[in-house]
Amino acid sequence: MRVGDFLRTSRQKPVICAPEDTVETVAARLTAHDIGAMPVCGAGDALVGVISGRDLVRAFAKDSARFRERRVRDLMTRQVITCEPAESMAAAEKLMNEHHIRHLPVVEGAKLVGVLSIRDAVAARLSESRDEVNFLRDAVIAARHA
Amino acid sequence: MRVGDFLRTSRQKPVICAPEDTVETVAARLTAHDIGAMPVCGAGDALVGVISGRDLVRAFAKDSARFRERRVRDLMTRQVITCEPAESMAAAEKLMNEHHIRHLPVVEGAKLVGVLSIRDAVAARLSESRDEVNFLRDAVIAARHA
Repeated sequence: MRVGDFLRTSRQKPVICAPEDTVETVAARLTAHDIGAMPVCGAGDALVGVISGRDLVRAFAKDSARFRERRVRDLMTRQVITCEPAESMAAAEKLMNEHHIRHLPVVEGAKLVGVLSIRDAVAARLSESRDEVNFLRDAVIAARHA
Repeated sequence: MRVGDFLRTSRQKPVICAPEDTVETVAARLTAHDIGAMPVCGAGDALVGVISGRDLVRAFAKDSARFRERRVRDLMTRQVITCEPAESMAAAEKLMNEHHIRHLPVVEGAKLVGVLSIRDAVAARLSESRDEVNFLRDAVIAARHA
Protein backbone atom coordinates (compact mmCIF):
# COMPACT_ATOMS: atom_id res chain seq x y z
CA MET A 1 0.00 0.00 0.00
CA ARG A 2 1.14 3.54 -0.85
CA VAL A 3 1.11 6.36 1.72
CA GLY A 4 -1.14 8.44 -0.57
CA ASP A 5 -3.70 5.61 -0.79
CA PHE A 6 -3.74 5.30 2.99
CA LEU A 7 -4.26 9.06 3.47
CA ARG A 8 -7.14 9.06 0.96
CA THR A 9 -8.79 6.16 2.84
CA SER A 10 -8.28 7.60 6.32
CA ARG A 11 -9.42 11.13 5.38
CA GLN A 12 -7.56 12.69 8.34
CA LYS A 13 -7.19 16.47 8.31
CA PRO A 14 -3.84 17.24 9.98
CA VAL A 15 -3.77 19.49 13.05
CA ILE A 16 -1.17 22.20 12.46
CA CYS A 17 0.14 25.42 13.99
CA ALA A 18 2.02 28.53 12.83
CA PRO A 19 5.61 29.65 13.62
CA GLU A 20 4.35 32.71 15.53
CA ASP A 21 2.00 30.73 17.82
CA THR A 22 2.73 30.79 21.57
CA VAL A 23 3.58 27.77 23.74
CA GLU A 24 0.13 28.20 25.34
CA THR A 25 -1.51 27.73 21.92
CA VAL A 26 0.62 24.66 21.19
CA ALA A 27 -0.09 23.08 24.60
CA ALA A 28 -3.83 23.75 24.22
CA ARG A 29 -3.94 22.30 20.69
CA LEU A 30 -1.91 19.17 21.51
CA THR A 31 -4.16 18.60 24.54
CA ALA A 32 -7.44 19.24 22.71
CA HIS A 33 -6.55 16.77 19.95
CA ASP A 34 -4.73 14.32 22.28
CA ILE A 35 -1.65 14.23 20.05
CA GLY A 36 2.07 14.35 20.78
CA ALA A 37 3.29 16.55 17.92
CA MET A 38 2.10 18.57 14.94
CA PRO A 39 3.51 20.12 11.77
CA VAL A 40 4.25 23.84 11.66
CA CYS A 41 3.08 25.48 8.43
CA GLY A 42 3.75 28.88 6.89
CA ALA A 43 1.94 30.52 3.99
CA GLY A 44 0.26 28.16 1.49
CA ASP A 45 0.47 25.18 3.88
CA ALA A 46 4.25 25.09 3.36
CA LEU A 47 5.83 22.80 5.95
CA VAL A 48 8.46 24.73 7.93
CA GLY A 49 8.91 22.49 10.99
CA VAL A 50 7.43 20.15 13.59
CA ILE A 51 6.63 20.98 17.21
CA SER A 52 6.06 18.32 19.88
CA GLY A 53 5.03 18.13 23.50
CA ARG A 54 8.56 16.91 24.08
CA ASP A 55 9.93 20.17 22.63
CA LEU A 56 7.81 22.06 25.18
CA VAL A 57 9.03 19.86 28.07
CA ARG A 58 12.66 20.24 26.96
CA ALA A 59 12.37 24.04 26.67
CA PHE A 60 10.70 24.24 30.10
CA ALA A 61 13.50 22.08 31.59
CA LYS A 62 16.11 24.38 30.06
CA ASP A 63 14.64 27.72 31.23
CA SER A 64 11.39 27.42 33.15
CA ALA A 65 11.27 31.12 34.13
CA ARG A 66 11.19 32.37 30.51
CA PHE A 67 9.25 29.44 29.05
CA ARG A 68 5.97 31.35 28.63
CA GLU A 69 7.65 33.90 26.32
CA ARG A 70 8.64 31.23 23.79
CA ARG A 71 7.10 30.96 20.33
CA VAL A 72 6.82 27.92 18.08
CA ARG A 73 9.62 29.23 15.82
CA ASP A 74 12.05 29.19 18.83
CA LEU A 75 11.37 25.56 19.74
CA MET A 76 10.35 23.70 16.59
CA THR A 77 12.50 21.17 14.77
CA ARG A 78 13.34 22.64 11.36
CA GLN A 79 15.07 19.61 9.85
CA VAL A 80 11.95 17.51 9.33
CA ILE A 81 11.95 13.95 8.04
CA THR A 82 9.16 13.70 5.46
CA CYS A 83 7.87 11.34 2.81
CA GLU A 84 5.89 11.68 -0.41
CA PRO A 85 2.46 10.14 -1.18
CA ALA A 86 4.01 7.71 -3.71
CA GLU A 87 6.17 6.10 -0.97
CA SER A 88 5.18 2.63 0.30
CA MET A 89 3.80 2.28 3.85
CA ALA A 90 6.65 -0.15 4.61
CA ALA A 91 9.30 2.41 3.56
CA ALA A 92 7.55 5.10 5.64
CA GLU A 93 7.54 2.82 8.70
CA LYS A 94 11.25 2.02 8.19
CA LEU A 95 11.99 5.74 8.02
CA MET A 96 10.12 6.38 11.30
CA ASN A 97 11.93 3.52 13.05
CA GLU A 98 15.35 4.64 11.80
CA HIS A 99 14.76 8.17 13.09
CA HIS A 100 12.80 7.13 16.21
CA ILE A 101 9.83 9.31 15.28
CA ARG A 102 6.16 8.46 15.60
CA HIS A 103 4.75 10.95 13.08
CA LEU A 104 5.78 11.51 9.50
CA PRO A 105 4.57 14.57 7.57
CA VAL A 106 3.63 13.75 3.98
CA VAL A 107 4.51 16.47 1.47
CA GLU A 108 3.98 17.22 -2.20
CA GLY A 109 6.83 19.58 -3.00
CA ALA A 110 6.83 21.99 -0.03
CA LYS A 111 3.13 21.59 0.75
CA LEU A 112 1.89 19.45 3.65
CA VAL A 113 -0.81 17.01 2.50
CA GLY A 114 -1.08 14.75 5.57
CA VAL A 115 0.57 13.09 8.54
CA LEU A 116 1.25 9.37 8.87
CA SER A 117 1.58 7.84 12.36
CA ILE A 118 3.73 4.83 13.24
CA ARG A 119 0.54 3.26 14.62
CA ASP A 120 -1.11 3.52 11.15
CA ALA A 121 2.00 2.10 9.47
CA VAL A 122 2.39 -0.84 11.91
CA ALA A 123 -1.33 -1.66 11.64
CA ALA A 124 -1.04 -1.74 7.83
CA ARG A 125 2.03 -3.99 7.99
CA LEU A 126 0.57 -6.41 10.57
CA SER A 127 -2.52 -6.70 8.38
CA GLU A 128 -0.30 -7.64 5.41
CA SER A 129 1.79 -9.97 7.63
CA ARG A 130 -1.36 -11.75 8.84
CA ASP A 131 -2.41 -12.20 5.20
CA GLU A 132 0.95 -13.87 4.49
CA VAL A 133 0.68 -16.18 7.52
CA ASN A 134 -2.86 -17.17 6.46
CA PHE A 135 -1.69 -17.76 2.88
CA LEU A 136 1.19 -19.95 4.08
CA ARG A 137 -1.05 -21.88 6.50
CA ASP A 138 -3.46 -22.62 3.62
CA ALA A 139 -0.51 -23.67 1.44
CA VAL A 140 0.76 -26.08 4.14
CA ILE A 141 -2.69 -27.64 4.53
CA ALA A 142 -3.15 -27.90 0.74
CA ALA A 143 0.32 -29.45 0.30
CA ARG A 144 -0.33 -32.02 3.05
CA HIS A 145 -3.64 -33.08 1.49
CA ALA A 146 -2.40 -33.07 -2.11
CA MET B 1 8.29 -15.01 26.74
CA ARG B 2 7.36 -13.73 30.23
CA VAL B 3 7.66 -10.06 31.20
CA GLY B 4 9.97 -11.03 34.10
CA ASP B 5 12.33 -12.90 31.74
CA PHE B 6 12.47 -9.88 29.44
CA LEU B 7 13.26 -7.49 32.33
CA ARG B 8 16.04 -9.80 33.58
CA THR B 9 17.56 -9.88 30.07
CA SER B 10 17.26 -6.14 29.42
CA ARG B 11 18.62 -5.11 32.87
CA GLN B 12 16.95 -1.68 32.66
CA LYS B 13 16.84 0.33 35.87
CA PRO B 14 13.61 2.37 35.73
CA VAL B 15 13.81 6.17 35.98
CA ILE B 16 11.38 7.30 38.70
CA CYS B 17 10.36 10.40 40.62
CA ALA B 18 8.64 11.21 43.93
CA PRO B 19 5.16 12.71 44.57
CA GLU B 20 6.70 15.87 46.09
CA ASP B 21 8.98 16.57 43.09
CA THR B 22 8.39 19.82 41.15
CA VAL B 23 7.41 20.09 37.47
CA GLU B 24 10.95 21.43 36.85
CA THR B 25 12.43 18.19 38.22
CA VAL B 26 10.07 16.07 36.11
CA ALA B 27 10.80 18.04 32.92
CA ALA B 28 14.56 17.83 33.54
CA ARG B 29 14.46 14.08 34.22
CA LEU B 30 12.24 13.23 31.22
CA THR B 31 14.55 15.32 29.02
CA ALA B 32 17.80 13.91 30.45
CA HIS B 33 16.64 10.32 29.88
CA ASP B 34 14.75 11.10 26.63
CA ILE B 35 11.59 9.38 27.87
CA GLY B 36 7.91 10.30 27.71
CA ALA B 37 6.76 9.15 31.14
CA MET B 38 7.97 7.66 34.42
CA PRO B 39 6.54 5.92 37.47
CA VAL B 40 6.05 7.86 40.69
CA CYS B 41 7.21 5.96 43.76
CA GLY B 42 6.72 6.53 47.47
CA ALA B 43 8.54 4.83 50.37
CA GLY B 44 9.97 1.36 49.64
CA ASP B 45 9.64 1.78 45.86
CA ALA B 46 5.84 1.54 46.21
CA LEU B 47 4.20 2.60 42.94
CA VAL B 48 1.78 5.48 43.61
CA GLY B 49 1.30 6.89 40.08
CA VAL B 50 2.70 7.71 36.66
CA ILE B 51 3.69 11.16 35.37
CA SER B 52 4.17 11.94 31.68
CA GLY B 53 5.32 14.81 29.53
CA ARG B 54 1.75 14.90 28.30
CA ASP B 55 0.54 15.49 31.90
CA LEU B 56 2.86 18.52 32.03
CA VAL B 57 1.61 19.86 28.67
CA ARG B 58 -2.04 19.36 29.73
CA ALA B 59 -1.48 21.14 33.07
CA PHE B 60 0.31 24.00 31.32
CA ALA B 61 -2.57 24.30 28.81
CA LYS B 62 -5.08 24.41 31.67
CA ASP B 63 -3.36 27.09 33.80
CA SER B 64 -0.06 28.34 32.40
CA ALA B 65 0.35 31.12 34.99
CA ARG B 66 0.38 28.74 37.98
CA PHE B 67 2.06 25.82 36.23
CA ARG B 68 5.46 26.26 37.93
CA GLU B 69 3.87 25.80 41.39
CA ARG B 70 2.61 22.32 40.53
CA ARG B 71 4.00 19.17 42.12
CA VAL B 72 3.99 15.63 40.76
CA ARG B 73 1.22 14.62 43.18
CA ASP B 74 -1.10 17.28 41.63
CA LEU B 75 -0.65 16.07 38.05
CA MET B 76 0.13 12.34 38.14
CA THR B 77 -2.25 9.60 37.08
CA ARG B 78 -3.09 7.56 40.19
CA GLN B 79 -5.08 4.79 38.53
CA VAL B 80 -2.13 3.04 36.91
CA ILE B 81 -2.44 0.05 34.60
CA THR B 82 0.25 -2.46 35.67
CA CYS B 83 1.28 -6.03 35.06
CA GLU B 84 3.17 -8.70 37.00
CA PRO B 85 6.45 -10.39 35.98
CA ALA B 86 4.66 -13.72 35.38
CA GLU B 87 2.51 -12.14 32.62
CA SER B 88 3.28 -12.99 28.97
CA MET B 89 4.77 -10.28 26.72
CA ALA B 90 1.78 -10.76 24.37
CA ALA B 91 -0.73 -10.10 27.19
CA ALA B 92 1.28 -7.02 28.29
CA GLU B 93 1.22 -5.67 24.71
CA LYS B 94 -2.53 -6.29 24.45
CA LEU B 95 -3.02 -4.38 27.72
CA MET B 96 -1.00 -1.40 26.41
CA ASN B 97 -2.94 -1.34 23.14
CA GLU B 98 -6.32 -1.56 24.89
CA HIS B 99 -5.45 1.37 27.15
CA HIS B 100 -3.47 3.33 24.49
CA ILE B 101 -0.39 3.50 26.73
CA ARG B 102 3.23 3.08 25.69
CA HIS B 103 4.72 2.20 29.09
CA LEU B 104 3.61 -0.47 31.52
CA PRO B 105 4.97 -0.52 35.10
CA VAL B 106 5.71 -4.05 36.30
CA VAL B 107 4.93 -4.64 39.98
CA GLU B 108 5.38 -7.37 42.57
CA GLY B 109 2.68 -6.60 45.11
CA ALA B 110 2.94 -2.80 45.52
CA LYS B 111 6.63 -2.59 44.63
CA LEU B 112 7.84 -1.39 41.22
CA VAL B 113 10.31 -3.85 39.68
CA GLY B 114 10.55 -2.49 36.12
CA VAL B 115 8.88 -0.76 33.18
CA LEU B 116 7.96 -2.42 29.89
CA SER B 117 7.64 -0.30 26.75
CA ILE B 118 5.33 -1.02 23.80
CA ARG B 119 8.46 -0.92 21.63
CA ASP B 120 9.99 -3.81 23.65
CA ALA B 121 6.74 -5.78 23.47
CA VAL B 122 6.24 -5.27 19.72
CA ALA B 123 9.90 -6.19 19.03
CA ALA B 124 9.45 -9.42 21.04
CA ARG B 125 6.26 -10.30 19.17
CA LEU B 126 7.60 -9.52 15.69
CA SER B 127 10.59 -11.74 16.49
CA GLU B 128 8.21 -14.58 17.42
CA SER B 129 6.03 -13.83 14.35
CA ARG B 130 9.10 -14.00 12.06
CA ASP B 131 9.95 -17.37 13.65
CA GLU B 132 6.44 -18.62 12.78
CA VAL B 133 6.68 -17.37 9.18
CA ASN B 134 10.09 -19.08 8.79
CA PHE B 135 8.73 -22.29 10.31
CA LEU B 136 5.72 -22.27 7.95
CA ARG B 137 7.93 -21.50 4.91
CA ASP B 138 10.15 -24.49 5.79
CA ALA B 139 7.05 -26.65 6.24
CA VAL B 140 5.72 -25.62 2.78
CA ILE B 141 9.06 -26.44 1.13
CA ALA B 142 9.35 -29.76 3.01
CA ALA B 143 5.77 -30.73 2.10
CA ARG B 144 6.34 -29.90 -1.61
CA HIS B 145 9.50 -32.01 -1.72
CA ALA B 146 8.18 -34.94 0.35
